[in-house]
Amino acid sequence: MISLSRTEIEDLIDPLRAAEAIEAAYRAVSRGEVNLPPVGHIAFPQSGGDCHIKYGHITGEPIFVIKVATGFPGNEASGLPNGNGVVMVLSSETGEVRAVLHDEMVMTDIRTGLGGAIASRLLARKDSRRIVIVGTGVQAHRQIEAHSALLGDDVIFHIWGRSRDKAAEVARSHSGRVAISVAEDLPSACAAADVIVTVTGATAPFIQADWIKPGTHVTAVGADAPGKQELESVLVASAGTLVADLSSQCLDHGEFAVPFAEGLIAAERVRDLGDVLNDNSLGRKSDDEITIADLTGLAVQDIAMAGIVLDAQTGRGQA
Amino acid sequence: MISLSRTEIEDLIDPLRAAEAIEAAYRAVSRGEVNLPPVGHIAFPQSGGDCHIKYGHITGEPIFVIKVATGFPGNEASGLPNGNGVVMVLSSETGEVRAVLHDEMVMTDIRTGLGGAIASRLLARKDSRRIVIVGTGVQAHRQIEAHSALLGDDVIFHIWGRSRDKAAEVARSHSGRVAISVAEDLPSACAAADVIVTVTGATAPFIQADWIKPGTHVTAVGADAPGKQELESVLVASAGTLVADLSSQCLDHGEFAVPFAEGLIAAERVRDLGDVLNDNSLGRKSDDEITIADLTGLAVQDIAMAGIVLDAQTGRGQA
Repeated sequence: MISLSRTEIEDLIDPLRAAEAIEAAYRAVSRGEVNLPPVGHIAFPQSGGDCHIKYGHITGEPIFVIKVATGFPGNEASGLPNGNGVVMVLSSETGEVRAVLHDEMVMTDIRTGLGGAIASRLLARKDSRRIVIVGTGVQAHRQIEAHSALLGDDVIFHIWGRSRDKAAEVARSHSGRVAISVAEDLPSACAAADVIVTVTGATAPFIQADWIKPGTHVTAVGADAPGKQELESVLVASAGTLVADLSSQCLDHGEFAVPFAEGLIAAERVRDLGDVLNDNSLGRKSDDEITIADLTGLAVQDIAMAGIVLDAQTGRGQA
Repeated sequence: MISLSRTEIEDLIDPLRAAEAIEAAYRAVSRGEVNLPPVGHIAFPQSGGDCHIKYGHITGEPIFVIKVATGFPGNEASGLPNGNGVVMVLSSETGEVRAVLHDEMVMTDIRTGLGGAIASRLLARKDSRRIVIVGTGVQAHRQIEAHSALLGDDVIFHIWGRSRDKAAEVARSHSGRVAISVAEDLPSACAAADVIVTVTGATAPFIQADWIKPGTHVTAVGADAPGKQELESVLVASAGTLVADLSSQCLDHGEFAVPFAEGLIAAERVRDLGDVLNDNSLGRKSDDEITIADLTGLAVQDIAMAGIVLDAQTGRGQA
């Protein structure tokens, strides 16, 4: 039985291999080759905390995964992280526990970053160089890392946040490794962008349709629950191609939920990421269209990550 | 973070303390002071295996518990145990993982034994001495241990199994510690019993109503899924007091399911174990009535066990 800490897990993750595994997982979803039972949930009214249990299996994989994620908003006051998590990896052939990955959410953070970069790489124009990151939280870092790994060395990042200081801090922490600078003005940064990645917790749309030039790709990661929205509904409605990691999820509680509820987009317009990965013709149609990907996160990404970590650990163990 | 193996866990469990914690858990269920979301389940058609995820919280407890149990019937052929399991203990105040208990089902086995003995102690006549164990599997051992711990030193066990050899083996492994012998004949053993504990996987009832004398108590543990039954329906129907660890569960897939489906018992006749623990007047009414307890297992028992193990470990750590 393998037991790994957050640091050990992070050391074992090669972003390109992980991206490959996550792409394969998205493709498997598209082919219906996954078993993802409903997410378990338990709440703790006294502390305002809760716990989600996501689990599932990709057909043919020798492992299955149970991911436990907790969120306790009161932790911050005592200097503890709000979010916590552990991923159990079990054999789908014998039921034995293969590994307990005490990742403290790092696998989720990394896979969310990689999901974003996979969508951007798939849907952005091939000559895309200017990437604007909107937001300064954990996902700002993870999207920079993932986009830099997947979109090549010559991309240039601009980061914008409501707090210029925080944006500068994120930029500083990545400078040297990637070309990155702080965007002074969000509308002009968006207008000049090839790719926009939104990673805020915004509850009202603030990325305006008239900022976005033809041919831009937007990867929207922030809206992952009812009541969150980053992009103006008309921007979503005017896009040429809409892609979701899982349309049923994104139309319910992702970036696409509000324009869908407002009747501005039809469900049929939204393709699943795995469908587009399996059939490129479903993606960007021309260099002029706006493409938007909405990601809310899938348990199969966690399964893929766990497999990558376990393979890497086993490989090292045998070496 | 505490990580314990099966042996370490077994060493930490004091049966009397564990029984106390489990009783408290049953009582909490009766008062509605528990949060037990629906059990998660995932199946693996290729191997015929499956996995259940049970989780829950007892109001006010500083921990909550996620229990993962797998059953892979094909394991036996490769010399592996069919059942496997791990119990995660998390803080209900911060969401942090407090412990991963690699118990390989031993906590489930012990709590099932203790549940049986708690029911027998509560419902059997006070002068009960002769206990008949019907069945020779893991639960035969656990019920002997738990009944001997909870019902006092002067009880005498008789064990019966379809295989006399297996029964003799169980008896041998406990002799010296408890008074135990093999019952040659099931009908006469049942007729002479004060307490009968059934722990078989029988799919057709074989304990006959006319074997059971007035005043006997029966704890039925074997039937825990649709299609299993150990006691003749008329025996259940003729009993004076019927108790279930959780009536909704037992009427659905426990020993009481068939007589209930046959219309021989009304749902209102079955009291929950926690109700009877909270109000003794709901239990045995006289020395002459037959009482029957049907146990299908509750996640709160697992929560109680995990608490006991964690307390014991923390206590030792501090000592």
